[in-house]
Amino acid sequence: MRRTRTQVVIIGAGPAGLLLSHLLDREGVESVLLENRAPEYVRGRIRAGMLEHSTVELLGDAGVGDRLGREGMEHRGIYLQFPHERHHIDFHSLVGRSVWVYGQTEITGDLMRARSAAGQQSYYEVSDVALHDLDGDSPAVTFVDADGSPHRVHCDVVAGCDGFHGPARRTIPDGARRSFGREYPYAWLGVLADVAPSTDELIYAWHPEGFAMHSMRSPSVSRLYLQVDPDEDVAEWPDDRIWEALARRLGDGQDGWRLKPGRITDKSVLPMRSFVSTPMRYGRLFLAGDAAHIVPPTGAKGLNLAVADVALLSRALAALLREGDPRLADDYSATALRRVWRGTHFSWWMTSMLHVTGDPFDAQLQRSQLEWVVRSPSAAAGLAENYAGLPIGY
Amino acid sequence: MRRTRTQVVIIGAGPAGLLLSHLLDREGVESVLLENRAPEYVRGRIRAGMLEHSTVELLGDAGVGDRLGREGMEHRGIYLQFPHERHHIDFHSLVGRSVWVYGQTEITGDLMRARSAAGQQSYYEVSDVALHDLDGDSPAVTFVDADGSPHRVHCDVVAGCDGFHGPARRTIPDGARRSFGREYPYAWLGVLADVAPSTDELIYAWHPEGFAMHSMRSPSVSRLYLQVDPDEDVAEWPDDRIWEALARRLGDGQDGWRLKPGRITDKSVLPMRSFVSTPMRYGRLFLAGDAAHIVPPTGAKGLNLAVADVALLSRALAALLREGDPRLADDYSATALRRVWRGTHFSWWMTSMLHVTGDPFDAQLQRSQLEWVVRSPSAAAGLAENYAGLPIGY
Repeated sequence: MRRTRTQVVIIGAGPAGLLLSHLLDREGVESVLLENRAPEYVRGRIRAGMLEHSTVELLGDAGVGDRLGREGMEHRGIYLQFPHERHHIDFHSLVGRSVWVYGQTEITGDLMRARSAAGQQSYYEVSDVALHDLDGDSPAVTFVDADGSPHRVHCDVVAGCDGFHGPARRTIPDGARRSFGREYPYAWLGVLADVAPSTDELIYAWHPEGFAMHSMRSPSVSRLYLQVDPDEDVAEWPDDRIWEALARRLGDGQDGWRLKPGRITDKSVLPMRSFVSTPMRYGRLFLAGDAAHIVPPTGAKGLNLAVADVALLSRALAALLREGDPRLADDYSATALRRVWRGTHFSWWMTSMLHVTGDPFDAQLQRSQLEWVVRSPSAAAGLAENYAGLPIGY
Repeated sequence: MRRTRTQVVIIGAGPAGLLLSHLLDREGVESVLLENRAPEYVRGRIRAGMLEHSTVELLGDAGVGDRLGREGMEHRGIYLQFPHERHHIDFHSLVGRSVWVYGQTEITGDLMRARSAAGQQSYYEVSDVALHDLDGDSPAVTFVDADGSPHRVHCDVVAGCDGFHGPARRTIPDGARRSFGREYPYAWLGVLADVAPSTDELIYAWHPEGFAMHSMRSPSVSRLYLQVDPDEDVAEWPDDRIWEALARRLGDGQDGWRLKPGRITDKSVLPMRSFVSTPMRYGRLFLAGDAAHIVPPTGAKGLNLAVADVALLSRALAALLREGDPRLADDYSATALRRVWRGTHFSWWMTSMLHVTGDPFDAQLQRSQLEWVVRSPSAAAGLAENYAGLPIGY
């Protein structure tokens, strides 16, 4: 058993863990990063791709925004589509903020490079991660490294950035946490296609057959989604069927707009779930990102909530570990959860407004709400301020 | 069988039917009004009491707003209450419109006096009302008057203002209409109390035990509500239990505020239902108000939607019957339903935000949404524009 010591053990090298290690490094706090997957797997994981205004600002301030600034695509808003109508919700004119399309894969790559440059210790492909003595002053994390050697890292703080399925949250005793959740009765069939997007900004579509969305990864790669059943078999969706359903739901032919089909390179069914575990701290363990909360993808809040958690947590840990000031750390859970619940509510709201349930009364409420959102500046601004993102620390 | 003729037979002498007869009279259109209850019963029926800006304007323009102007209480907004916090949503500063507290009993009385003065025919305590030949050019309504004499009134148009349980909507063949609805899993226990209101404007309260509301009828009569189960037995709620629950839910003691109890003079359980029947026209039959749609009381939309229907319908019938122009009549259903669905969605939204369901995730969403509404000017304006009311013809 190799015994070492650091200030913060970060479990999970997704965007939350990588960004936390980077921000702590800039504050002069040492960390060790543990990840059970290989770096290539982490870097290739296709997830979120829409960054809030404050996420972009934070990455820029942290010195990891150069490539985002060059290659990211600024979007001033989104389109809301329903049969025979498409409306642009212009976040920039409504609330003075934009969003940016920049894939999670790119952010992960940028942060991995920054961490390598900083020379802090990372262990990939670890196994048997276990957390110890979280309720004392000197917690530790044990794991087995990629070569099979066991380690014990003593630390001041453990940061659980290990996602919904990771060990950190599960280490908290049952009586010390409470979880809240909702499983939605639908899922997304997501496809990646080698074709230039047929739209300059995202289209969120309500259609009697179900939700559809036209997103993008780059000027030559489109990302598209269809509402399907949670137990949908991808094999039932040959490419032609996907493009036909997308064309109908997205309004192909309406006012001359056309959906350009292309070669589909990836196809998968994404479940839709809301989940929040409270509090986000237990003793010397702090949770951030998906380890503490999951949102359905409608509204693109997942990665942005993780970034906001990490922004708060890095400041809190710097104050705690460098200055011995526990106030921000003591406030971390309550402060982070305010924003988490805002994002959870917004994601639930966008999801509920846009996905058909089979109940005709629901469908009429959705139509009336969509018509209100596109006609009322107050309603549009309400959507815009949530989508483009509230300030960190809201 | 007495046979007579008029231009419009109006079924139902609630606020919708009375106002329609009054507005048609001002347009020079003759009507006969049929009501199955006695006038004293209709005048004494305690229902809505909160008038939108445009309802107040319309009653004033129609010459029946004098007493409303003298005795009605203008409210600039409402209070939203949740544990330890009370916030004022100031409609006037958010959207430039107010609402008025003035009981449905008062409006009914004002309209009955106006109709008597106009000298148009009314029949109260009628029975066996039946509608005939609605799909031809010359419909008729048969009924038996209070003295037992049968009548047949031939007319150009029948207006169904006879509420949810009346015969008008039911006369439409099944294949010619569609209905949408929702039963809510809770109800209101409503009380009238002889005590000055403890608040200058309405308090809508979210509480872990359930919704509560403090409304009022006059400077000396309070109207209060508690969320209860739909099958709640009023006998289980002695006055003391009611005042104790109201005090807890409304925040008695918070920041020095006190709920003043008083003598309870009326106690009843009100079901919560959303219902919309479309279209609002079948041949020569036009529906208005509760005959076509029901909302839960949260948000006070029922009477206001009825008034908006009648405003549109009186103009449409005047154009049709005086000038032979069918365009407004042909548009009536679609135009009225846009506003009906807006009010239906808003009522559903207010109801869903404020009533506890027993699901802890719902409770967290509700809290987050309430906190957003009181902190975000966009969200507050969205509530205000719906509550104070959109323009008629929206």
